[in-house]
Amino acid sequence: MRHRTSLGYTDPVMNEIKLALFQMSVCLEKEDNLQKFEDWAAIAAAEGADVLVLPELFTSPFDHELLSAASEPFEGGETVSTVADAAMRHGVTVIGGSFPEQASDGRLWNTAFAVSPDGEMLAKYRKIHLFDPAYPGISMRESDSMLPGDSLASFSCCGVPASIVICYDLRFPALFARLRREGAGIIFAPAAFNHVSGPAHWELLVRARALDTQSFVVACSPASNYALSYSPWGHSLVVDPWGDVLDDAGSGEGIRYCTIRPERIQQVRSQIPLELHQRPEIYG
Amino acid sequence: MRHRTSLGYTDPVMNEIKLALFQMSVCLEKEDNLQKFEDWAAIAAAEGADVLVLPELFTSPFDHELLSAASEPFEGGETVSTVADAAMRHGVTVIGGSFPEQASDGRLWNTAFAVSPDGEMLAKYRKIHLFDPAYPGISMRESDSMLPGDSLASFSCCGVPASIVICYDLRFPALFARLRREGAGIIFAPAAFNHVSGPAHWELLVRARALDTQSFVVACSPASNYALSYSPWGHSLVVDPWGDVLDDAGSGEGIRYCTIRPERIQQVRSQIPLELHQRPEIYG
Repeated sequence: MRHRTSLGYTDPVMNEIKLALFQMSVCLEKEDNLQKFEDWAAIAAAEGADVLVLPELFTSPFDHELLSAASEPFEGGETVSTVADAAMRHGVTVIGGSFPEQASDGRLWNTAFAVSPDGEMLAKYRKIHLFDPAYPGISMRESDSMLPGDSLASFSCCGVPASIVICYDLRFPALFARLRREGAGIIFAPAAFNHVSGPAHWELLVRARALDTQSFVVACSPASNYALSYSPWGHSLVVDPWGDVLDDAGSGEGIRYCTIRPERIQQVRSQIPLELHQRPEIYG
Repeated sequence: MRHRTSLGYTDPVMNEIKLALFQMSVCLEKEDNLQKFEDWAAIAAAEGADVLVLPELFTSPFDHELLSAASEPFEGGETVSTVADAAMRHGVTVIGGSFPEQASDGRLWNTAFAVSPDGEMLAKYRKIHLFDPAYPGISMRESDSMLPGDSLASFSCCGVPASIVICYDLRFPALFARLRREGAGIIFAPAAFNHVSGPAHWELLVRARALDTQSFVVACSPASNYALSYSPWGHSLVVDPWGDVLDDAGSGEGIRYCTIRPERIQQVRSQIPLELHQRPEIYG
């Protein structure tokens, strides 16, 4: 597996990109989740998908002990190699949702990555904002068991400048402004909102970040599963640069296909030239 | 009329603030619009409103010639003095939507202001982002006849740090991040979206900016009026710091009342401590 260190903008831009969002019902056993990924990858490739998008923490339910048990190193780990092998085998790009990457002193990084159809590692991104909320109905503190990342990821996805964020990152518009300045036109957002923030904020945030950046935002969640201690909201979304929802996966398990046209990015940016009109000299 | 130059944070914070949004159907004659304002101010004050909120360009329809004819200076102008007199007469705060303020060489500023119950000028704000879109169905270029402002406005509204933005400003999250850093808990947004951007983006943007800043956003539009060359979208909104819509005025003309509780600001900010969790060292 080779690592690409600079943006591969010399790739030709595809006119249409067929996305396959894997809204998996994540189960307890890592092997079962990886097997489901491999099975679905074969199905989606046969359907002509160009990019497979996995959800946040797709190898283990969100639970500190389970995540710790499922954790592995990035280099040479089972999850990364399984995903990279499937990308090469099927000739597709894969956005490797996220998995628990082993850090120091028993802690984890919440790590996503992107692999090209020829098995190149295009990007690696560790979630930079850890979710420690304090509202009724939810008790969790990611920072109890996780470490935050400290850098961003830019890469070329089918010729389009792209980036990855994870879940709680969606609440920070300044992060997205930075990704836009770096050129992103597609922003992948593996995520797992809960049943309080999901109905209140999920669609609002994904649409807002797409409209703010005039980019596609591709937000992939695990399916809802009330048998788990933390049931994700589901509702994987594809939103276009005008803020329109192209697809909403609902709460159940399944592969969702959605074809996007990258020309829409420049079209919207010329219709409302936000970058030209901004006044940073006034507000920083 | 006195001008307050610093934030009056020594005002006691009101537990509840009753807002009255004036979703006026703006007509051709400035005098008629100002008379309607005075009539409605008396009604809203009798209903116990604490703050009267006027829409963008409430003294003239959006049309370059009409705006030019209705324009006036800020100091000593009829609109500012009419509003300030009403504020004092009724003992209410008034957010003076906006009006065409005479600038140099025949151009205008799109200027909003805030007046305290004792007639103090609390804030003056000239729209900093001019709307020059290029999408089908709308032909307008504000910069043909307007000049942009170059500063922000902060003030105390019923004891709560507040600010004003106008319409297209809603598309710039970095502006709102700055207002939040300066302490704003209520952001007034006189606006007049159109019938393309209105259904597509109005509620999305107002809710997103409230959720991003964890502030109330009070967005007041003129009523729809298809007899005008530019019919506003209407749908004046009050959104709370959790992003919930407390009131949507629909498209017709009328006074909309909505009571907000400022304690909700700190409540939401402690439930999801965005300011504590942000990572500007990574993304600027």
